[in-house]
Amino acid sequence: LQKHDLKTVEKILSKTHKGDIAEVFKYLSKEERTKIFNILYKTNPEKAVEVFKDLDDIVKIEIIRSLHIKDSVDFILKLPTPEIASIIENIPEDVKKAVIENLKGEEKEELKHLLSEGEDKVASIISDSYLAVLDTSTVEDAIQKVKEYNQDIELVYIYVVDEKNKLVGVISLKDLLTYPSNLMIKDIMKRDLITLNIEDTKEEAIENFRRYDLYVLPVVDDEGTLLGVVYIEDILDVMSEKTTEDFFKMAGAKEEELFYADKTFKIAKLRLPWLLIATVGEFITAVIISLFDYTISEFIQVVFFLPMVAALSGNISSQAAIIAARGLRDGRLTENTIDYLFTVFRELKVAVFIGIIIGILVGVVASLWISNHILGIIVAIALFFSIVFAGLIGSLVPFIMYKLEKDPTLATGPLSLTLTDIIGISIYLVVATFFIHYLKL
Amino acid sequence: LQKHDLKTVEKILSKTHKGDIAEVFKYLSKEERTKIFNILYKTNPEKAVEVFKDLDDIVKIEIIRSLHIKDSVDFILKLPTPEIASIIENIPEDVKKAVIENLKGEEKEELKHLLSEGEDKVASIISDSYLAVLDTSTVEDAIQKVKEYNQDIELVYIYVVDEKNKLVGVISLKDLLTYPSNLMIKDIMKRDLITLNIEDTKEEAIENFRRYDLYVLPVVDDEGTLLGVVYIEDILDVMSEKTTEDFFKMAGAKEEELFYADKTFKIAKLRLPWLLIATVGEFITAVIISLFDYTISEFIQVVFFLPMVAALSGNISSQAAIIAARGLRDGRLTENTIDYLFTVFRELKVAVFIGIIIGILVGVVASLWISNHILGIIVAIALFFSIVFAGLIGSLVPFIMYKLEKDPTLATGPLSLTLTDIIGISIYLVVATFFIHYLKL
Repeated sequence: LQKHDLKTVEKILSKTHKGDIAEVFKYLSKEERTKIFNILYKTNPEKAVEVFKDLDDIVKIEIIRSLHIKDSVDFILKLPTPEIASIIENIPEDVKKAVIENLKGEEKEELKHLLSEGEDKVASIISDSYLAVLDTSTVEDAIQKVKEYNQDIELVYIYVVDEKNKLVGVISLKDLLTYPSNLMIKDIMKRDLITLNIEDTKEEAIENFRRYDLYVLPVVDDEGTLLGVVYIEDILDVMSEKTTEDFFKMAGAKEEELFYADKTFKIAKLRLPWLLIATVGEFITAVIISLFDYTISEFIQVVFFLPMVAALSGNISSQAAIIAARGLRDGRLTENTIDYLFTVFRELKVAVFIGIIIGILVGVVASLWISNHILGIIVAIALFFSIVFAGLIGSLVPFIMYKLEKDPTLATGPLSLTLTDIIGISIYLVVATFFIHYLKL
Repeated sequence: LQKHDLKTVEKILSKTHKGDIAEVFKYLSKEERTKIFNILYKTNPEKAVEVFKDLDDIVKIEIIRSLHIKDSVDFILKLPTPEIASIIENIPEDVKKAVIENLKGEEKEELKHLLSEGEDKVASIISDSYLAVLDTSTVEDAIQKVKEYNQDIELVYIYVVDEKNKLVGVISLKDLLTYPSNLMIKDIMKRDLITLNIEDTKEEAIENFRRYDLYVLPVVDDEGTLLGVVYIEDILDVMSEKTTEDFFKMAGAKEEELFYADKTFKIAKLRLPWLLIATVGEFITAVIISLFDYTISEFIQVVFFLPMVAALSGNISSQAAIIAARGLRDGRLTENTIDYLFTVFRELKVAVFIGIIIGILVGVVASLWISNHILGIIVAIALFFSIVFAGLIGSLVPFIMYKLEKDPTLATGPLSLTLTDIIGISIYLVVATFFIHYLKL
């Protein structure tokens, strides 16, 4: 990127679709990104705002940090309030302070509301780019308004409000084209509306978009006042965020760490809690193993298969848990207890079948390897029971989480794996010890 | 559900939004669902088709199976071809045969194409509900076409084709309202179009929808002929399917099993491959442990912490792997090797930090518990090295998968965990043996 290329860069930027610029940004280095953003911001601040909205949260923060304080404050003040809310906690303190000081009273209130509500509400993805007409208008008035409407985003629905800004109906552009221009809007509008409440969560918004096949949903408060709209394209982003969040949850990590590009300590701090729980859990397995030191010193070969018991129990329980948790998440499984017990029963049958196959396989190989048929049989039986219990735990824990109003996805993480380790290893050692004594008689 | 309620049920069904019916279906028992669907199908077959499209795949199959053969064949023939393709492999053989026999030649070809291409292509979500006008039309002609257009789905864009059905432009309804009615469409249409190719994957479609904020994308072949459109609402469903698929992949399971409600053997068969790989991997750990039987019989306490080493290495590697795999998936991480090495380096730093904390913690508790300080120190050091290597493996494997053009999500599953077990346990035992010998001198 040479100095004399500046004009070319400007020209390319002005011709490229905002979505493409945001996409290309992913493939640039940090320096290239910030440099190009600066050029864009200087030549076309509005487009810079549009591109910015499409960037990943981490890149947003990176760009804000790269701007001079004054520039970054000016730039942030150009953003819509929900966008400000989504980044404000991660920008330098001085910029944050300056932004809040310079916000207008109304926007400051909105920001405060958004921050207190957290990221999870519809409020954080609401847009004020929409067209509303009074219910006293005619079709012609509405067409006039459409002609004047000058937003980047495609217009599909026109909302109808009364004089108190209460949402009373909706018409489509197609209706405006179809009906005679002297008709009253209120006589042709559709009155039974699907709306979002400002207090709804993003999850509920996703649910509504998936259920009703609409491109835009109006957002109202409890009195039915129209506050804004939510666009389906923002729902795409929300869905992708939720997925990432779920994956992080499964790992016992938190999505927040994406903001901490290379802050080792902060990332480690976010990941440690579950690891510490796992450590405590594994101390329990250590104690359990120590209780069986007689069995172990008698037949040291029992130990060889300890990691196998732990790993297979873990895999089987996480298969069952992931399938159950996803089912609860996407509504395939209902909270109906009978239905759920049916699922648990099915997982149990699957585990029994898998336990028999793997038990026999490992038993045969183990007896050949250590030339001790009895130990082979013991390992096979112990493994079988561990696998069956793992299937049971894996399918039960998500449901218990759900009933406790916790997120069932948590059941697929370190907690469940530790639990399976403890139980799997206990069963294995108890069965092994029992048979060893029995066979010795 | 009594006989005399039939009329009421019919009335409720006719008044309820198709999305709501599909939603309610989730909360009904199998019998209720099929009974109500039968009523709906008899009174309003078109709506039954619409409701059907919104149902989960498993419920679809369940309903098809509940209908009489003749009814189910008739019903399936009413569905759009991509919809037929998505269920045909899971319906009874006789119904399948009858459906294929009764399809028209063109539809049969399309079905064959869809089935051979698999589920992953845009072709499986293409819709033929769209409005196209010839480039020789006037604005008035187009308005006339809009008035005649009578589909359930909201009209936003009108596609412009030449006499060979080649896509040449697009206009929005707003344009039709804005421009004088005697203008030629070709003079006002937008010519630089964003299109999907019929050979694109669903992933690419998602990417395009997220990038360009459009509600509908036209699908063309290599010659630019307009073949149909893809709606953003179907993209919502695809995203949700992809998420479920990824979660199943992480568990080493396959989404297909959702079709096999209670077929234990089939489900077990789908899950077994990864479990068998894990079993083989854990045999390797068994062999490795057997090589250290001298160390173990000398200091049996070393064994107590084997499951802890396996579990913590596993957790740490899966945190690193999930974060890297998600990053590669959603484009946060690019395939740029330098960028990636930076991520690996960060994960390594995090692992070192976590290794120090957990190493010290476990070391202290272990020395107090087994009253052997030296063994405490050995466990701490061995654990530290296992954790650091786990972080390295976890962050590297997704990238290797990506470079091998495999799905990086696979790296978060059983394969990676087994690998971590093998390496973690080897490191632990090597370090322990080394120090035991060293300290004995």
